Amino acid sequence: MNIRFYNAKILLLKQDSVIEDAGTEISLEVQKRHQFALVQGELWIKGNRILYIGDGTDTDRIYENMDERGIVWDREIDAEGNVLMPGFKNAHTHTAMTFLRSYADDLPLQEWLNKQVFPMEAKITQEDIYHLCRLGIMEYLTSGITSNFDMYFAPLPGAKASVDCGFRTVFTSGLNNFCQSLPEVKELYHEIGEMSERTSFVMGFHAEYTTSMELMEGMAALAQEVKSPVWFHNAETALEVEECKQRWGKTPTEIAESLGMYAYGGGGYHCIYMEEKDFSIFKKRGLTAVTNPASNLKLASGIAPVKRFLEEGISVAIGTDGPASNNCLDMFREMFLVSGLAKVREKDAACVPAEEVLYMATAGGAYAMGLTDCDCLAEGKLADLIMIDLNQPNMQPDNNFVKNIVYSGSKQNVLLTMVDGKILYEKQKFFIDVEPKEVYHHANEIIRRIRE
Amino acid sequence: MNIRFYNAKILLLKQDSVIEDAGTEISLEVQKRHQFALVQGELWIKGNRILYIGDGTDTDRIYENMDERGIVWDREIDAEGNVLMPGFKNAHTHTAMTFLRSYADDLPLQEWLNKQVFPMEAKITQEDIYHLCRLGIMEYLTSGITSNFDMYFAPLPGAKASVDCGFRTVFTSGLNNFCQSLPEVKELYHEIGEMSERTSFVMGFHAEYTTSMELMEGMAALAQEVKSPVWFHNAETALEVEECKQRWGKTPTEIAESLGMYAYGGGGYHCIYMEEKDFSIFKKRGLTAVTNPASNLKLASGIAPVKRFLEEGISVAIGTDGPASNNCLDMFREMFLVSGLAKVREKDAACVPAEEVLYMATAGGAYAMGLTDCDCLAEGKLADLIMIDLNQPNMQPDNNFVKNIVYSGSKQNVLLTMVDGKILYEKQKFFIDVEPKEVYHHANEIIRRIRE
Repeated sequence: MNIRFYNAKILLLKQDSVIEDAGTEISLEVQKRHQFALVQGELWIKGNRILYIGDGTDTDRIYENMDERGIVWDREIDAEGNVLMPGFKNAHTHTAMTFLRSYADDLPLQEWLNKQVFPMEAKITQEDIYHLCRLGIMEYLTSGITSNFDMYFAPLPGAKASVDCGFRTVFTSGLNNFCQSLPEVKELYHEIGEMSERTSFVMGFHAEYTTSMELMEGMAALAQEVKSPVWFHNAETALEVEECKQRWGKTPTEIAESLGMYAYGGGGYHCIYMEEKDFSIFKKRGLTAVTNPASNLKLASGIAPVKRFLEEGISVAIGTDGPASNNCLDMFREMFLVSGLAKVREKDAACVPAEEVLYMATAGGAYAMGLTDCDCLAEGKLADLIMIDLNQPNMQPDNNFVKNIVYSGSKQNVLLTMVDGKILYEKQKFFIDVEPKEVYHHANEIIRRIRE
Repeated sequence: MNIRFYNAKILLLKQDSVIEDAGTEISLEVQKRHQFALVQGELWIKGNRILYIGDGTDTDRIYENMDERGIVWDREIDAEGNVLMPGFKNAHTHTAMTFLRSYADDLPLQEWLNKQVFPMEAKITQEDIYHLCRLGIMEYLTSGITSNFDMYFAPLPGAKASVDCGFRTVFTSGLNNFCQSLPEVKELYHEIGEMSERTSFVMGFHAEYTTSMELMEGMAALAQEVKSPVWFHNAETALEVEECKQRWGKTPTEIAESLGMYAYGGGGYHCIYMEEKDFSIFKKRGLTAVTNPASNLKLASGIAPVKRFLEEGISVAIGTDGPASNNCLDMFREMFLVSGLAKVREKDAACVPAEEVLYMATAGGAYAMGLTDCDCLAEGKLADLIMIDLNQPNMQPDNNFVKNIVYSGSKQNVLLTMVDGKILYEKQKFFIDVEPKEVYHHANEIIRRIRE
């Protein structure tokens, strides 16, 4: 599909050189490391990539190397002055857990996990997982999320759901003592990596407290063999870190480092109870801390040291975690929380400003997931983008778009979500391979069946 | 207007006797003090009140005392299986501050207040306040909020905006050493109380740290004279309480009690740094603690002891605070935060469950604001209600409606907002006395003018 957006405001990362060529710049307050700019103009998509961003006066350079037919537009979309920006990257989730949304809330953590989550998960089939992931992907689209970093014990049906919906997913292994084996993980790595251009697989395991030393050693060797980063749940609770140190005299991060797991990078999910050595290792290895603020509140886990990550120059990304613990898959809520929780944790209303949070939710996630080809809007990048409605009271007045989107934004502002050049969601309608009602029906049928 | 909703699920408070008559009950998990139930059926509105709730088989009792013409319906609305529930009550806000949304974020508290908020507020006119309040009211409608408890230094234009929009507002005085006088407050009490059936006024002052003892004494006398509850910002920051104790040897709550301010009830906004005696006074006097979680994060103020309030049986309500400190006016975000922040504060994932939070956001707010005639859906109550879309991924599967709305709900689920029997917002369109674009235009014009 060739799509031309015109009459748009386009959100660019300031350090990106494309900004120099990109129409009239609308000034935004400049703060901290990462800066954004809104430019007025057009954005053209050819196939699945951004072909042109500019004010429409310098398009000769685009036509230069084309034959005389030029570009035939499949759609020309009047953005009506609304904003085009990169899609959000949901950098940690367990999508298939949609069936447990609002099923077992307001319970102590261990009761939630051992009496509710694990026994119910044991009952679902591969086909169930396929349907449940489609429900999660639909929810991502409503929140402007264009890719997810998914860990689940059975990733193949989730990968198929993602491919069928036209979504983009990076999977990691949920390897632990009770599920998956190293040979299986290696097979998944190849199978999912080759399944589609929109699916990939990186190495990972569930967590230190669920995985034997032997398996962790095997994971390190496998990651080095295929040159993959490694990911796992890391320092989510104080108890987890404490027990790990009792077992091994090291934090989970130190164990991973000592086993050589971080030779090709990676990072951790949650990263709340970080020790000094952990910060050093994250910094040295260029690892990413994925923060999951809503889940950390709801399970009473704690508040991550995001201000410190920024001070250390450690990359941060944002994840919703699974719908059983959050319960919704909404990047707007997460963005507000990343900033708000850092402020209250540090007693510092100035820390972790909106610009940094927006960077985490877009380019930071892309870096974590190895999706550096769709981290920001620029010519040549993959067309994973969203359109944000400014004609809503929560976006007015237009004092500062970045502050507005991070502190006031809502799913209601998402007019359009595009993945890989295809519009999958527009004006509250889904353009995927299945009717919403059918997906809802499956989800309800599954939870009713396994509750019996 | 006479409106008939059919094919609806209707959310009722379990202790409400109407439930016995109300169609087929859909079971919801039962937890803690307050319980809700969904019943399948119809809800009829005559004028501005709920005339009937039931399954449609027992309507004879409604027609009994009518003449033969019965009811002529202005609209009959197929709810398509979606939920009708009471509108949210925003129990603490400064609506007119919409102009400062995203204007001065990520700053230390004192710099925000003294260098940004106060100097800008000094420049706005009464007419500005009128336009800015309309913007806020529009935002309330998108979030299913049907009434607000507003404190502002100039309440008259806000009251006029509320009346013109068809909204419901309870005002309180922002009296302090720099603005308003006791005679002015008394005049406002009568003027706003008599302005419309949807506006009322209760006594209040800004906060102990901005108000002299003489004024506080005068406020106590005035409240007793007109038999009004009294409200003020109370224990929002640790410093505020500390300095108050240094000045008077008492907490702000103890001062108010000792002056006789609570003879007719009332309560406090924020209520974070509460001491033992404060809990006792709140309990003894039946006061309400209004919690403002998003604002408390963003200004790094702290996390309120909501679990303790519930344990003590102290009434809790929820407010967004003003858009300069939040920055959005969204009850869904606040509801998640009330529960999530309590859980992380107490390290207890089971505390402050969704049912209690939904009660706070509806009936709890109504109690605080003296709006007990629109606290829940029941025959004879005022028709302040909303319709929630279940055909969205964030509401699926339908494991538990109350958990879904509190933990996963979003503005996007609000299909319709009705105040006093009139539909003011439906399918993302506003039915108020002004075009949205005009309101946005005014807001932008105002902030641009005063920035100069």
